[in-house]
Amino acid sequence: MELTPVADLPEIRPGDDIAALVAERVDDDLEPGDVLTVASTIVSKAEGRTADLEDYPVSGRAQEIADKIGELTDEEKDPRFAQAVLEESTELLIDCPFLLTETRFGHICVNAGIDRSNVPGHDLLLLPKRPSESAERIRQGLEDRGVEDVAVIVTDTCGRPFRHGQRGVAIGWAGMPASRDWRGERDRDGHELEVTVQSVVDELSAAANLVTGEGAGGTPAVVVSDWDFGDLEGSDELFRSVEDDLVRQALREWEFDG
Amino acid sequence: MELTPVADLPEIRPGDDIAALVAERVDDDLEPGDVLTVASTIVSKAEGRTADLEDYPVSGRAQEIADKIGELTDEEKDPRFAQAVLEESTELLIDCPFLLTETRFGHICVNAGIDRSNVPGHDLLLLPKRPSESAERIRQGLEDRGVEDVAVIVTDTCGRPFRHGQRGVAIGWAGMPASRDWRGERDRDGHELEVTVQSVVDELSAAANLVTGEGAGGTPAVVVSDWDFGDLEGSDELFRSVEDDLVRQALREWEFDG
Repeated sequence: MELTPVADLPEIRPGDDIAALVAERVDDDLEPGDVLTVASTIVSKAEGRTADLEDYPVSGRAQEIADKIGELTDEEKDPRFAQAVLEESTELLIDCPFLLTETRFGHICVNAGIDRSNVPGHDLLLLPKRPSESAERIRQGLEDRGVEDVAVIVTDTCGRPFRHGQRGVAIGWAGMPASRDWRGERDRDGHELEVTVQSVVDELSAAANLVTGEGAGGTPAVVVSDWDFGDLEGSDELFRSVEDDLVRQALREWEFDG
Repeated sequence: MELTPVADLPEIRPGDDIAALVAERVDDDLEPGDVLTVASTIVSKAEGRTADLEDYPVSGRAQEIADKIGELTDEEKDPRFAQAVLEESTELLIDCPFLLTETRFGHICVNAGIDRSNVPGHDLLLLPKRPSESAERIRQGLEDRGVEDVAVIVTDTCGRPFRHGQRGVAIGWAGMPASRDWRGERDRDGHELEVTVQSVVDELSAAANLVTGEGAGGTPAVVVSDWDFGDLEGSDELFRSVEDDLVRQALREWEFDG
């Protein structure tokens, strides 16, 4: 398996065609079966998903959250930012000492993934509205330029329970399933494997994040080549619902008390 | 970045020298700066970390857990297995409908990572006792064979809250820090980045898991080449303590009720 950053992408602006910009730069290096990962930041920029704090008139709930965080932690929270997070979310899993929410497309992350760096001329960069549709548009755009059969993953970086540090995850994908299903497969001695479903889009996103870097030197698109999904069954379930997530159930009953 | 599975490793037996077996097979392909990932299953086998259910006389707590799981779920739990999990753990985060624990070396996973497949002639394969020490022994073994300056990661696969599917994670590492610290770095416009610490050992483990496969066709060791940690600060914190993990705090107050 080989990962190659797409070199020399320009600063992305609203309306930019990511498929075209990538295709111009990788040309013959994208082959059928390859995977292109694209950081959500540039997808959001191309889709004009910028916003300003003044766009968010503060609701009672947002004011409450900002007050609570102000009281129970050292951090001053702008209630307009809390409002922006609420508007991007369908459920608030943690409201203090930070905001952990489920976004409208099912991804669970801090602050609904809203970024306050990386956004020239505006206060906020929101995640793409429907990242799998964004991935499909880029895949289609590549196909229109003669680059056939390439899967596209839109990636984000976020933290997680139990383990320090952030890692790359997938928030949207097209042209491949999210997971490989190993159920029923056997080990060398014929025992059924304990592993069940392998989240390959997350693993590809984590791998890509090792070569994208961050900040000024970052390369937000990566080509994965010489890798094969294999002939296992695939699944497109990636985001857990409350019903099959004990941690979400536990968080519903829990409250931070400083 | 390139990932190459180590081909033709034999079935690993107690006492086998993984560094020697790998060095014989990759020879000149391991270069200074490369990373070798090794699946915990073969590390455990080499270290003789097999066990049988009859080795675990059942304590009252283990019997209670098995009874509770039997009552509240459809699953029959062997109390000897619950006992094995307890003996490998320092804290039980969830006791029903499955066992989520913190292992003695700080890793949080289901069933303390005990595997019931992959273990010829025995019932159970336990995780390595101190995986970072295992990684260091392999690193040292490679050095003794003239393979200098190679980092080693011992990997596991496990599930996680919020997202379906398993992915590769690091449980031990040597010769490199666990994480890159981006704090204070800036984006193209000079804004401080929101990303803080990037868990590169987890990302490398996830990447490796894409090419190791599982079961009979699995290749449990992978060489990562043409990748560079860079000149950022490193950190060796990987496992969160209760104090900085709100999810662990929430789980302490929560109980499954069927």
